[in-house]
Amino acid sequence: MKIICTQENLIKGLGIVSHIAGKNISLPILNNILIKTEEGMVRLMSTNLDIGIKTAIRGKIEKEGEVTVGSKILTDYIALVPGGNITIEESDNKLLIKTENQETILNYQSAEEYPVIPWVNTDGGLVVEAVVFREALGQVINSASYEDIRPELSGVLMVINKEELIMAATDSYRLAEKKIKIKKNNLGQEMAYKIVPLRALQEVLRVCGDGEKELKIGFSDNQAIFDFGETVIMSRLIEGNYPEYKEIIPAGWKTRVLIEKNSLISQVKAASLFSRAGINDVLMDFNKNNLVVSAANSQYGENKSKIEATIEGENNSVVFNYKYLLDGLQNISQKKVLMEVNSADMPVILRPETGDDYLYLVMPIRR
Amino acid sequence: MKIICTQENLIKGLGIVSHIAGKNISLPILNNILIKTEEGMVRLMSTNLDIGIKTAIRGKIEKEGEVTVGSKILTDYIALVPGGNITIEESDNKLLIKTENQETILNYQSAEEYPVIPWVNTDGGLVVEAVVFREALGQVINSASYEDIRPELSGVLMVINKEELIMAATDSYRLAEKKIKIKKNNLGQEMAYKIVPLRALQEVLRVCGDGEKELKIGFSDNQAIFDFGETVIMSRLIEGNYPEYKEIIPAGWKTRVLIEKNSLISQVKAASLFSRAGINDVLMDFNKNNLVVSAANSQYGENKSKIEATIEGENNSVVFNYKYLLDGLQNISQKKVLMEVNSADMPVILRPETGDDYLYLVMPIRR
Repeated sequence: MKIICTQENLIKGLGIVSHIAGKNISLPILNNILIKTEEGMVRLMSTNLDIGIKTAIRGKIEKEGEVTVGSKILTDYIALVPGGNITIEESDNKLLIKTENQETILNYQSAEEYPVIPWVNTDGGLVVEAVVFREALGQVINSASYEDIRPELSGVLMVINKEELIMAATDSYRLAEKKIKIKKNNLGQEMAYKIVPLRALQEVLRVCGDGEKELKIGFSDNQAIFDFGETVIMSRLIEGNYPEYKEIIPAGWKTRVLIEKNSLISQVKAASLFSRAGINDVLMDFNKNNLVVSAANSQYGENKSKIEATIEGENNSVVFNYKYLLDGLQNISQKKVLMEVNSADMPVILRPETGDDYLYLVMPIRR
Repeated sequence: MKIICTQENLIKGLGIVSHIAGKNISLPILNNILIKTEEGMVRLMSTNLDIGIKTAIRGKIEKEGEVTVGSKILTDYIALVPGGNITIEESDNKLLIKTENQETILNYQSAEEYPVIPWVNTDGGLVVEAVVFREALGQVINSASYEDIRPELSGVLMVINKEELIMAATDSYRLAEKKIKIKKNNLGQEMAYKIVPLRALQEVLRVCGDGEKELKIGFSDNQAIFDFGETVIMSRLIEGNYPEYKEIIPAGWKTRVLIEKNSLISQVKAASLFSRAGINDVLMDFNKNNLVVSAANSQYGENKSKIEATIEGENNSVVFNYKYLLDGLQNISQKKVLMEVNSADMPVILRPETGDDYLYLVMPIRR
C-alpha cells in the first residue's frame, strides 16, 4: 500500500474513527485503525465489535493495499507533524510515514487479522435530515441509562411509524420522548421498534456535524446503520422489549407553570449546592404567582429563591433530584418551559412552551 | 458584620484567596475564608499556615465585623447567583447572604478561631515592575523541584544584589537562571539570598495580572511578602543553603547551534512519542548545517527528523530527556534559541538569541 494525503484530511478522518479504538487488552488488534484503499478512496475503519465506524478521506493512491496500525500513536503523531502532504507506505514489512522533513517507521499488524465489520445496506431504510436528527437525539440521549442491569434501558428506543420517527429514552428516574419527521421511509407501512445502544448513538452525535445533510438509517434484524455518506456507523441492536413508557405519563395536570427557563436553571443550580449529598433533593413550591426553589443540608446551610411565573391551577409542592430536572431543562431549546404538576408523588412533565413534539418526564423524590 | 458588594467584586476577590483554602482535615477552619471589615474596605483572607493571601474589595460596610466561612461553598454559591448586589450579614448566630431574589443561610465559624497571619512590613524591601517579575518568574519556576527530599530545591533562589535580582531554580536535572532590574532597593548594599517556596510563587504568578504595576517584595528572617497593593501574599522562607549552581555551568562550548525555536519544539514533540517510557530519551545529532532529532522504542517504532540550523564548531551528539528540553525551549520567548553543546555527558545550555539575562541548563542522559 502507498497513499499520499494531507495532514488536514488525515486528522479529520482519524478524529472520526479513532474514538472507539480503545484499550482492548484481550484483543489488542482492536486498538488499531484499519487503513484501506477502496474504490479510489482512502478508507479508515475501526471497531470495538459492538460498533463499527468507517470514513473516507481524499488521497492519492499510488499502490492499493490495507494495513492496521495503533490508533493512539498514529493519531498523536499525525497531530504533531507540520502541515502538508503525508505519505504512508507499506513495504519490506515496514510501515513508513514520510513528511517533508520527517521519517517515521511505525509498528503495524496485517489487515488479515482485523475483524470483518458487517455493513448493512441502507437502501431499504429511512432518510432523515441530519441536523434535525442530531438535535432530536441530543434531547433524549441523556435520559438513557448508563447501567447494564436492564440492557433495554441502556439504549434509545426508535419507533418508525410511516412518516414519523419517535425516539424515547429512560433510566426509570426520568424519560424523554421526541418526534421528528421522516423524509423518506422505505421500511414499509408496518411500525418498527428498534433499541439502539447509547454508546453507538454517542458516536452518531459526535460524528454528525453541521456539514452533514442527509442521514440514511438502515436496519437488519440485529444491526443498525447510520450512513452520513462519507462516514458510516454500524451498531448492534439491543434485544428485548422496551417498557410501555406511555402508561406512566399523566393524562392531565393540577398545576401548570410557564416559566423562563434560564432563571429556573440558575436558581436550581444555586439550590443544588445545598441539597443533601447522594439525595440531590431540591424542593419546589408552586404558589399563585411564583415558584419557590429551596434546599438545605446540615453541612453548608440553606438556600431559598423566588421566581416569577405564570401558574394555573392549584398550589403544589414537589421534591426533585436536581440533576434530572436540570437535564430536562437543558434539553429544551425554547426560552420558556411548561411544567405540568399533579402531586408530590406523581411524575412531573416538562415541555417547550410551544409544540407537542417533545416531552420530558421526571419522577419526584417522595418525602 | 454587614457588608454589601457586587457579585463581580466578590467573585474576583474569592478567586484570589480561595485557591489555598483547601481540604485541611486536621484543622478544618483552614478550609474557610476570613471576611473582615478593615479601614473602610472588605478584606478577604486565607492561609494554609505556610502561605497567607489577603485582598481588598470595594463594598459598603453597614456594620463592622469579621466571620469565617467555607471557601468552596461560598465561592461556588457566589458564582451561581445572578449578578448585582450581594448583602452578607451576620446576626443572631446566622450568616445571611441576600441577593435580589435569593436568601441563603450559611454555616460559619467565628473569626476568633482563625489563625493570625503575620504580615511583614515591606517598606524596607525592594520594588520591581510587576509584569517584568511575572515574566521572569515564569521562566524559572518550572525548573524547581516538586519533591521534598532536598527542601532547598523546592523553592526559587532569589539573590538581591544592589540593582539586580537574580532568580534561579533547579531540580538537579535542569536549571534556569534569570536576571532582572530592581527599581528600588531598600535592603541596603549587602547581597541577600532567600529561597522562596515554589507553592507560594505559584500563587504570586496566579495573582499577578496585567493590571498590577508595582510589586513590593519584603523579607523578614523567615518570611517573604509579595505586595501588589490590593493583594498581598505572605510565605515562609525555606531554610538551608542553595547549591553553588554556577559551578556546573560550562565555561565554553564545542558546538553552538542557532535554531528556530518553534520548529525544534514541534520536532522534539513528534520524537517524544517514540521515546522510551520512563526514560524519555530523544537523540540530537548536530551536523554541519542541520540538526537531526530521533527516537525509537520497541512498542511503536521510530521517528527521525532533520531541521536546518546555523551550527558552529564540531559535530556533536547528545541524548536529552525531552520533557526538560521542552520546558527550557518554552521558557524562551524569542523566535530563535542558541544551544551550547560540549559533549554527550556535559550539560547543554539554552539561551535566547540575544541578551544575556537568561540561561537554561539541561543535563544529558548518559548512554
